[in-house]
Amino acid sequence: MSTLRDIGESGFIDRIVALLSASPEVIEGPGDDCAVLRVGDRTLLVTCDLSMENVHFRRGAAAPEDLGWKAAAAGLSDIAAMGGVPQFLLTSVAAPAETDADELEGICRGVVDVAQHCGAVVVGGDVTRSTGGIVLDVMVIGEAPEGRFRLRSGAKPGDMLAVTGWPGRSAAGFEAEERGIDAPTLVRAHYRPEPRIREGRWLCARDDVHAMIDVSDGVVQDAGHLAERSGLGVAMTSASVAADPELAALCAETGRSIQDYVFTGGEAYELAFAIDPATCGKALAAFREEFGLPVVILGEFSDAFNGVLIDGEAPTERGYEHF
Amino acid sequence: MSTLRDIGESGFIDRIVALLSASPEVIEGPGDDCAVLRVGDRTLLVTCDLSMENVHFRRGAAAPEDLGWKAAAAGLSDIAAMGGVPQFLLTSVAAPAETDADELEGICRGVVDVAQHCGAVVVGGDVTRSTGGIVLDVMVIGEAPEGRFRLRSGAKPGDMLAVTGWPGRSAAGFEAEERGIDAPTLVRAHYRPEPRIREGRWLCARDDVHAMIDVSDGVVQDAGHLAERSGLGVAMTSASVAADPELAALCAETGRSIQDYVFTGGEAYELAFAIDPATCGKALAAFREEFGLPVVILGEFSDAFNGVLIDGEAPTERGYEHF
Repeated sequence: MSTLRDIGESGFIDRIVALLSASPEVIEGPGDDCAVLRVGDRTLLVTCDLSMENVHFRRGAAAPEDLGWKAAAAGLSDIAAMGGVPQFLLTSVAAPAETDADELEGICRGVVDVAQHCGAVVVGGDVTRSTGGIVLDVMVIGEAPEGRFRLRSGAKPGDMLAVTGWPGRSAAGFEAEERGIDAPTLVRAHYRPEPRIREGRWLCARDDVHAMIDVSDGVVQDAGHLAERSGLGVAMTSASVAADPELAALCAETGRSIQDYVFTGGEAYELAFAIDPATCGKALAAFREEFGLPVVILGEFSDAFNGVLIDGEAPTERGYEHF
Repeated sequence: MSTLRDIGESGFIDRIVALLSASPEVIEGPGDDCAVLRVGDRTLLVTCDLSMENVHFRRGAAAPEDLGWKAAAAGLSDIAAMGGVPQFLLTSVAAPAETDADELEGICRGVVDVAQHCGAVVVGGDVTRSTGGIVLDVMVIGEAPEGRFRLRSGAKPGDMLAVTGWPGRSAAGFEAEERGIDAPTLVRAHYRPEPRIREGRWLCARDDVHAMIDVSDGVVQDAGHLAERSGLGVAMTSASVAADPELAALCAETGRSIQDYVFTGGEAYELAFAIDPATCGKALAAFREEFGLPVVILGEFSDAFNGVLIDGEAPTERGYEHF
């Protein structure tokens, strides 16, 4: 017998994908941030994200509203990663019968809040009893405007790897909270991540952005997914990681490097994308101007090797593993 | 503090629904079997159903494929209940790291099988670790052909309450298995329920079918939902329950009546509907002819009272309670 731990998340997903059949209405099945579906003259993006108590979150550490926000942000970020516009959410909740109804309502309010923040609405769900902890599954249905969307595949040799915003802050916020270090900006990045909806649409509208993903399991893993799905490798340089004063203050206390948090920190919900080197300078300047948000080049895609290199070497730490 | 047990499933749902905002694209929000959404020129039906180990199913008792089939049938049946055509499924799965990958693959194969059986495809999902038991959440996206669908509301005073197929068999199959009684047809009804997709479409296409629901928590509760949402009451007569030789054989062993299973037995996934008394005789004959399946009149809707009556009295047992 082989267990889930033996074969890992991706090994298991490979086995399930092998069971599935094709359909002319399915433009993209499993393997990207969202499935892409044809419905009449529209192109829909659908995704779901399961959050489990004591795996993805702990109660008590954060406000219930934060837990709901964070759980739903994961799916909204998947829509952003394809350049889509989120529209509808379904929320399944399971909880023990003795759960405080106010607490669970708070979690659901967080889901409603982040949906609204992103221009979407909660339209339904399911509520049932759990014999273990709280379970939250959020499904998001979005639309690809004018049928335009970006996949993980499509990066070309020589493309630059760029990452938006503040990757690493969420993981650092989690650690700050664990260690009782006062770092409200980082903790907020962990519990109230901002799905990069407008940024994703803006990037998707550009022809020089060839592939895109959201950073949910750390830049190493997620840039690795871009490379793998594009049949390429990606070489990153640690010196390219941007200064982040908030993160630097934490590093001084934890003794870890900014790079640690950026490369392997999960749940950042920033966007990582492959962009044409000929135009990326102007494009990234325009991005910063438009959104008042950093975006940095962390590496380059290549057909000379596979996998991920950091400063020429294979990274020793891979980021979040689900099993 | 009030708990989920204190306020119940519907009490909690009422609190969540109060948080939601409207949208012109949402034709029907929470409160029916599916949400009804406008996407371009199409009308979509979406629903999700969460199945928890040791609440909705036990491992070992059934083949993994059966557990997956049953979990996904719940959502497919919700699409049937509105007269829709299921198209796409998303499946979220959580399981402990030491779970046998073959077993979990079997559960997923059951989902894929029932989807295919109903003309739909699995297009994505999520896989993650659970610290408790296995969790399965299935979202189904369907379409309402030509924008036509049936709600729980819409029953009129004097309408007949009719129920398709074999309500009660699923609950009886569960009990047979619990007690070690050999009753393969009943056990199959429990683990391999048939979502009534074709039947739902056929009924929805008729103007004399005014309201519809699937029987997931027993006829008393679900016919009660039809009545409540239509602002009516419904009076059932226990003598109307059809003979079912398979069920009768079990009743002889358990000492319970066929009515017990039919009125309060959950997970039947039959359709209950309100139909015009003037045409229902011919309609039900045509239904039996078309599908080779029983359909019986169990009661009548009325504006003279609220709630559910059986033989003139309020039922003592209500069927499945989620908390």
